[in-house]
Amino acid sequence: MTAVDEVRRTIERLRREVCDLHAELTRYGLVVWTAGNVSARVPGEDALVIKPSGVAYDALTPAAIVVTDLHGNLLDGDLSPSSDTAAHAYVYRHRPDVNGIVHTHSTYATAWAARGEPIPCTLTMIADEFGGEIPVGPFALIGDDSIGRGIVETLAQSRSDAVLMRNHGVFAVGASAKAAVKAAVMCEDVARTVHISRQIGEPVPIAPEDVDRLYARYKNIYGQQAGERELR
Amino acid sequence: MTAVDEVRRTIERLRREVCDLHAELTRYGLVVWTAGNVSARVPGEDALVIKPSGVAYDALTPAAIVVTDLHGNLLDGDLSPSSDTAAHAYVYRHRPDVNGIVHTHSTYATAWAARGEPIPCTLTMIADEFGGEIPVGPFALIGDDSIGRGIVETLAQSRSDAVLMRNHGVFAVGASAKAAVKAAVMCEDVARTVHISRQIGEPVPIAPEDVDRLYARYKNIYGQQAGERELR
Amino acid sequence: MTAVDEVRRTIERLRREVCDLHAELTRYGLVVWTAGNVSARVPGEDALVIKPSGVAYDALTPAAIVVTDLHGNLLDGDLSPSSDTAAHAYVYRHRPDVNGIVHTHSTYATAWAARGEPIPCTLTMIADEFGGEIPVGPFALIGDDSIGRGIVETLAQSRSDAVLMRNHGVFAVGASAKAAVKAAVMCEDVARTVHISRQIGEPVPIAPEDVDRLYARYKNIYGQQAGERELR
Amino acid sequence: MTAVDEVRRTIERLRREVCDLHAELTRYGLVVWTAGNVSARVPGEDALVIKPSGVAYDALTPAAIVVTDLHGNLLDGDLSPSSDTAAHAYVYRHRPDVNGIVHTHSTYATAWAARGEPIPCTLTMIADEFGGEIPVGPFALIGDDSIGRGIVETLAQSRSDAVLMRNHGVFAVGASAKAAVKAAVMCEDVARTVHISRQIGEPVPIAPEDVDRLYARYKNIYGQQAGERELR
Repeated sequence: MTAVDEVRRTIERLRREVCDLHAELTRYGLVVWTAGNVSARVPGEDALVIKPSGVAYDALTPAAIVVTDLHGNLLDGDLSPSSDTAAHAYVYRHRPDVNGIVHTHSTYATAWAARGEPIPCTLTMIADEFGGEIPVGPFALIGDDSIGRGIVETLAQSRSDAVLMRNHGVFAVGASAKAAVKAAVMCEDVARTVHISRQIGEPVPIAPEDVDRLYARYKNIYGQQAGERELR
Repeated sequence: MTAVDEVRRTIERLRREVCDLHAELTRYGLVVWTAGNVSARVPGEDALVIKPSGVAYDALTPAAIVVTDLHGNLLDGDLSPSSDTAAHAYVYRHRPDVNGIVHTHSTYATAWAARGEPIPCTLTMIADEFGGEIPVGPFALIGDDSIGRGIVETLAQSRSDAVLMRNHGVFAVGASAKAAVKAAVMCEDVARTVHISRQIGEPVPIAPEDVDRLYARYKNIYGQQAGERELR
Repeated sequence: MTAVDEVRRTIERLRREVCDLHAELTRYGLVVWTAGNVSARVPGEDALVIKPSGVAYDALTPAAIVVTDLHGNLLDGDLSPSSDTAAHAYVYRHRPDVNGIVHTHSTYATAWAARGEPIPCTLTMIADEFGGEIPVGPFALIGDDSIGRGIVETLAQSRSDAVLMRNHGVFAVGASAKAAVKAAVMCEDVARTVHISRQIGEPVPIAPEDVDRLYARYKNIYGQQAGERELR
Repeated sequence: MTAVDEVRRTIERLRREVCDLHAELTRYGLVVWTAGNVSARVPGEDALVIKPSGVAYDALTPAAIVVTDLHGNLLDGDLSPSSDTAAHAYVYRHRPDVNGIVHTHSTYATAWAARGEPIPCTLTMIADEFGGEIPVGPFALIGDDSIGRGIVETLAQSRSDAVLMRNHGVFAVGASAKAAVKAAVMCEDVARTVHISRQIGEPVPIAPEDVDRLYARYKNIYGQQAGERELR
């Protein structure tokens, strides 16, 4: 098998994976209509695969998933790439450890984002998954690098794999597209639980040293597949 | 094919489309029992197709969808038209650019409507889809033109395709029945997110010039199907 | 066909209907586990059919539905009748116009019941369906007639087909089991919308004369099946 | 059939049961991703069956369920046991009447847990199922006996079969795995209803003597299967 064939096969596999992972977004109610997307880096190539723009989740097929370079220019596919492709591409250029990205406007996380408030670390699940509060990124208009830069700069100051972009929604990253989807699912889950807790009182923060212990343990020993956790 | 045959075929197609689009209302939880309806204008004719009154969504078939003139008088169909037909018909008479209308009592949007409060533009998704706040229309009794007039007059002062009718529910319009359903789905989604954000603080408004930029971009370049966005 | 055969057939039909209607309770999320039930009067007989006690909705079959007299004594069936049978039976004895009853602990309606607060008539849907606020009945222990009496006495002072039993849940009645299920579904829907509206402000009440107009119109002309509305 | 064969058969049956019961956790929305687990004691043996760590609910098969001793050491299975196994094992060692345990981070119950607030007994369903308020257990780190000890000590001072572990989530116990799942489902249901009731006022408490009457009746006569209730 030539190197070219191998890249082709990798892209086919990633198209299937990324297509299938969108079903997790609808399963957990993170998206409505066409408002959310998953991408994956093509390993060893300056390329990514991503959802096309404006296509319903039900109608999504592996063949509809498009391939772009790391500046969002279409390399392969019949449809236009997601209008969020530039933001994904910026993150892949500046975070070589990131191989998957998810964007949603999931309800509870976006509600925190609309107030510009980080989600405080008041649940063991937040400590486990995010190693502290889930941070807020800047307000940024679509059309240049400002969303991508906002994501990268905010995540650089945090152990979290998810960021709440102000007035906008969630971006989640991972060592794989599946890991990024997990972070997006967990982000909405804890956003909801802490929101509900705060509606009628104050959730108790977890002491920073306990957050560190929980995060270290979870990062090292949870789950069967070491690979899934390797980003942290 | 005669002109009469062509109209007949168009009506058959619209009956199927409108029947199918009701499944989006149940999928996104916008309706319970029989409390919501979709209509489409029959292009070039003084006619519309609409859900019959009091029929369960599961039991809806294309053949059950009825045809009325633009004053709500039955032209074809075995069942009575939706009791909201007069309001749909009024809008089609006064808005030649509108080809589809949806009415729901979706929970969060109706909760804003019960307080008579517009949904403030605090999310990029609201700026994209609605070009500003989602406005409130008057309280109006069913039985004459007051609901239809309230919809048309309120939308005339706004870029929004959705209106919250006071103490009642949502009417959404579009260049097609599908575009109207999209507006209804998005209206409930942002009504929910902003409501939740406001429960424990104040969501930050988006500056009017940024709203304009977001709306202009979205209107012009989002999605694959230019036709779907042509209303705006 | 003898009169006995006819009653037998009627009971078989009602067992199927009542069995099927429980699927509406799960579809609309009104019940968890086994905590809710539907019954129907056997017309012309001192008998009712009702869900057996402690049986999962998935496992429910027409044959599992039991028949009791109007004091809750088992007439036919292999399982014990619902522990709420006495309350259903009391209502059938005292309300000859009622042919179907539903009991749920649906979340939002029960939340109002836990505060002992009626649901104010702030939506056209409440005016249409319930003719005014949805009233609260007394706190009552299971085991004697107090629940049934509380239902009947509270409904006697109201146009509503649903009552919020204090600290407990909802009872809804109708001219048929299906009409009662509709009232239970609508009760939860408006309980949720008005609750959400009240979380961040005050929903505007509808003027009593408008409530009367809406209720009169809906009672007389909505829907295809006159029979379904005949109770009101 | 030898005694060894009998134990093998019992384990096969429990693996199927425990595998299937996880579907109730997803059905009622108590878990996301892999964050929740069910176990059952192997009767007469120092052993339990439990979900493996980090496996998706969809992918769960009876063969994937693992067997450990009552200190969490793997006896049979290809995968690592749930990271919560030590807590389950501690409870089985100290509560011989408990044969099933469920752990979730279900939203509303965990929201109470994040504030460290018990769920007050303001619904007849709470009195029936839990015999009083649902108590809060201590904050405890994973890795030693502190979670298990926290569960056992908290439940010892209560009639409740569920405990809200501070900043963490719910543990529910039962005479069978199914009874524990029921307690977990009911715990989330009442956590949600009472939370919603408290959002806009104060739910009225039920008098302690009425709580006792409701609990006594429910424990003794509800349902068809006496065995399911025998723990209480």
